[in-house]
Amino acid sequence: MPRYRLDIEYDGTAYAGWQRQDGPATVQGAIEQAIKGFCGQQVTLRGAGRTDAGVHATGQVAHVDLEKSWRDDTVRDALNAHLQMAREAVSILGARMVPDDFDARFSATGRRYLYRILNRRAPAALGANRVWLVQKSLDADAMQEAAQVLVGRHDFTTFRSQQCQAASPVRTLDRFDVVRNGEFIEIHAAARSFLHNQVRSMVGTIKQVGEGGWTADDVKAALEAKDRAACGVVAPPQGLYLVNVDYPDP
Amino acid sequence: MPRYRLDIEYDGTAYAGWQRQDGPATVQGAIEQAIKGFCGQQVTLRGAGRTDAGVHATGQVAHVDLEKSWRDDTVRDALNAHLQMAREAVSILGARMVPDDFDARFSATGRRYLYRILNRRAPAALGANRVWLVQKSLDADAMQEAAQVLVGRHDFTTFRSQQCQAASPVRTLDRFDVVRNGEFIEIHAAARSFLHNQVRSMVGTIKQVGEGGWTADDVKAALEAKDRAACGVVAPPQGLYLVNVDYPDP
Repeated sequence: MPRYRLDIEYDGTAYAGWQRQDGPATVQGAIEQAIKGFCGQQVTLRGAGRTDAGVHATGQVAHVDLEKSWRDDTVRDALNAHLQMAREAVSILGARMVPDDFDARFSATGRRYLYRILNRRAPAALGANRVWLVQKSLDADAMQEAAQVLVGRHDFTTFRSQQCQAASPVRTLDRFDVVRNGEFIEIHAAARSFLHNQVRSMVGTIKQVGEGGWTADDVKAALEAKDRAACGVVAPPQGLYLVNVDYPDP
Repeated sequence: MPRYRLDIEYDGTAYAGWQRQDGPATVQGAIEQAIKGFCGQQVTLRGAGRTDAGVHATGQVAHVDLEKSWRDDTVRDALNAHLQMAREAVSILGARMVPDDFDARFSATGRRYLYRILNRRAPAALGANRVWLVQKSLDADAMQEAAQVLVGRHDFTTFRSQQCQAASPVRTLDRFDVVRNGEFIEIHAAARSFLHNQVRSMVGTIKQVGEGGWTADDVKAALEAKDRAACGVVAPPQGLYLVNVDYPDP
């Protein structure tokens, strides 16, 4: 059975996250339904990362095995036609046939996330569901300094949801950068993999540094506590975007 | 009565344009309702530009006379609170007291618009109501060259809605620039004032150049025809943003 890689963009607002559930609308469920509409197959799509309810993606990756082989562009355009008909906020950016040993989840060597804070008094009228509005003025330089405390290989128990099912709380954070861009503060995070809620927990914590309540030393102490209770606030989902999944060159 | 200038952002998707109407929701109507909620006054707000249904703004300007004087920040925050309660996609970026001779419409010395084209095969999942999806690959350099034909003082009858109520079809287009930015093509237009549908008519016409169907000479001929029937397609409203209104330094 030919295997296809799908590159996927979605607005997570209306979805109960990536992973298929009985009942609520999910991104995985929407694409599986489109595949059924296209070729009649009832498939299980495997995604690189299970984004939470309200989290967006510009570069999610998934794979699926189809019974028949199709031109790459046909798969992309047909799935988009079905998604559009169903009024889903999901778009297939690209589809291509890949070797059978490509696994969207296990072949991935890195995940990159972007977190967007809108830092101004006035609410967002454009894209309100796609940023975290923080009305108190934030010190992006102080946030950047504190963010560097978290880069590297650490036990991230403090920054991990209590629902996290990963076997180990140890992860290597390759990048955690805070950049001010006008009224926006953009936070870039990269790692081979992340724990559940890790990016949102880290963002919420360094936001407290930006407000002046915490220092970089407080972030260090929170990390070293290895205790979920030591975490700052958890940033809300609507500012988070899965922007890229890395794979080894074929 | 103290006069206030309001700087306004809105997502035009759910509105029948800026101007108040009996029945359909409008941006002007939403803000007038918020003012009534704030201070009990039934006012008429004057805006710098009447955007059409579906057109957005990041820098609309309006003025209003209030019976009482308030701190600028109080006006901004109170109006935003009322707009948020009413779930309007409208935000007051700033409010400030201005001299009585400030008129949002007649004092304006320039208007700037941005038009965003998403130029790719896949539909927009994020912000689908905020771009024009053009699936055929566009030549932005050819569009930029053709756009320069329209810059300057001309009779823009070709690029003017038949509903346009302006006394003269002559306008001076100060800037009309086409810039590719990844998958987006951004078109910047500036003039003292524009005719009704002028930006969308000009954008639709140069898009035909980008597709290869028209040349810069065809655009010139269309301009010189001074005939609405010579216009290319009219670009849809959802890609258009009123980004700035200029006023003389006080």
